[in-house]
Amino acid sequence: MMNVAIIGYGNLGRGVERSIKQNSDMNLVGVFSRRQPADVQTDGAKVFVMEDVLKMKDQIDVCILCGGSATDLPEQTPALTADFNTVDSFDTHALIPEHFTKVDRVAKENQTVSVISSGWDPGLFSLNRLYAQSVLPKGETTTFWGKGVSQGHSDALRRIPGVLDGTQYTIPNEGIITRLKAGEKLTLTTRDKHFRQCFVVVAEGADKEQIASTITTMPNYFADYDTEVNFISQEELNAQHKTMPHGGTVLHTGTTHENSHQVIEYSLHLDSNPEFTASVLVAYARACVKLAQEGKFGAHTVLDIAPSYLSPKSGAELRAELL
Amino acid sequence: MMNVAIIGYGNLGRGVERSIKQNSDMNLVGVFSRRQPADVQTDGAKVFVMEDVLKMKDQIDVCILCGGSATDLPEQTPALTADFNTVDSFDTHALIPEHFTKVDRVAKENQTVSVISSGWDPGLFSLNRLYAQSVLPKGETTTFWGKGVSQGHSDALRRIPGVLDGTQYTIPNEGIITRLKAGEKLTLTTRDKHFRQCFVVVAEGADKEQIASTITTMPNYFADYDTEVNFISQEELNAQHKTMPHGGTVLHTGTTHENSHQVIEYSLHLDSNPEFTASVLVAYARACVKLAQEGKFGAHTVLDIAPSYLSPKSGAELRAELL
Repeated sequence: MMNVAIIGYGNLGRGVERSIKQNSDMNLVGVFSRRQPADVQTDGAKVFVMEDVLKMKDQIDVCILCGGSATDLPEQTPALTADFNTVDSFDTHALIPEHFTKVDRVAKENQTVSVISSGWDPGLFSLNRLYAQSVLPKGETTTFWGKGVSQGHSDALRRIPGVLDGTQYTIPNEGIITRLKAGEKLTLTTRDKHFRQCFVVVAEGADKEQIASTITTMPNYFADYDTEVNFISQEELNAQHKTMPHGGTVLHTGTTHENSHQVIEYSLHLDSNPEFTASVLVAYARACVKLAQEGKFGAHTVLDIAPSYLSPKSGAELRAELL
Repeated sequence: MMNVAIIGYGNLGRGVERSIKQNSDMNLVGVFSRRQPADVQTDGAKVFVMEDVLKMKDQIDVCILCGGSATDLPEQTPALTADFNTVDSFDTHALIPEHFTKVDRVAKENQTVSVISSGWDPGLFSLNRLYAQSVLPKGETTTFWGKGVSQGHSDALRRIPGVLDGTQYTIPNEGIITRLKAGEKLTLTTRDKHFRQCFVVVAEGADKEQIASTITTMPNYFADYDTEVNFISQEELNAQHKTMPHGGTVLHTGTTHENSHQVIEYSLHLDSNPEFTASVLVAYARACVKLAQEGKFGAHTVLDIAPSYLSPKSGAELRAELL
């Protein structure tokens, strides 16, 4: 049995709790939170204050860090890796190399293992890019996200004066995917690849026309996309747009000879983005413990970890069942 | 530069030659064939007789074995692994554990590395089954093949008295794929998953009705499927049905909580099956040489090899570009 601690309990932490129940080789030691334990409603897991994690060091094989990439993980991952094997989902793409270097140093100094930036993007999408580009070096990889809720874009909607609530869906351009798969060579702009669809609840008397214009012209978030704005009631938003579906496609098109067009496609269709991300973290927590048992101290990413480390089955079982 | 030898030169060997040209870190030493060199028409590679491979041991970092699984590879892989690092595409699923054990012993005794059973199935499909089942343990994996030419089934057609030539396509049932992706739980028979479509050229005066019946009732090959038989001319077969497209889908559907349905889909759409398989072998040849340099002697499969071993890029480059 692997003894697992959950650090932080939002949607992702709750997903990790659920995933651990589906893995019979794992035991959940507890949830460690900055909130008061009485304020944290789990699906049954014990809750401890964050400070207690060090006292329970002997009982924990791996910590799964469920905080955010903006402020939590840049601090928590290096700090906890000094005492524990850790897994995180750090997803600020541009800062991953720096995060890796920092965590790697702590892990090597303290003989621990940390698997950083797991999840699905970065994570499963990253390793599919790597496999595809290695097999078909003469080719192009394009990533499409959605249909799914973007938390960052939904937050951006809610910051607009007069907006009470909102949900934003990122929607891939299926027509472009079909054309790429058929072998067309396309030079794609940001606008070509995805649409943005917004459902917005506004305060009574708010100027809808101005809000729509603020949304569609918002730099970085919406200005470079075709964006649809729908004004709806809070009731309808609550009923229809409060789940967290997501997914996407990594499409790699290559050629192996003049007329040999080859397509590799990896797609996810997820009813719950946080629960799926959590399930990936849990599989990499298993890998993390195995790497630590083998003395492979330091930081690792999904790119460095052999697939068999993710499974509870032996090499012989996997060869017999999956090859 | 890695120095690569091709052992055997049919469609797969030709594909390996083409793939090596797309990989700037690889040098093709030559093709080693049981045929007389003058009879082997390559795309430019030097041709040697098979016996010469041992004399050139110092010039070869890895041998890519391009023979068949029925009789060539069970002999050649263990034999060559005594002197070389090797990669093969041994694909007789039921015999892979035995092949692994035999090759592993030779490799460990002789301090070489062998990557067995690479390609796409076994190979990329196997590792996608492993990733999917590890991330979503509460789920079902279904593999669909095609649309593509099955060499085994085409050969079976050609063995029927009165049949001069033939091509057989395996076609997945797209309706079933759609229903599985939508979350339906289905108990599938062999007949539900795939159709078989045959294009057959018969001798003048042959009894077409009897040939069609021989095909559709042939045990192991066609009896368990809905099979369509089309009689066409040799000219039409040559013009329309002599390329080797293939592909397929590994579909894994799982649940992470009551109403959270999650789908992982990995699909290949290949104009040339042998050229794609060859490209996978070449990427694993790179991994094979790296494993040998690290002293990781023995047999390995795609399940045991970290994705980064397939790429010519450094870990830092991969983290910056792909995560």
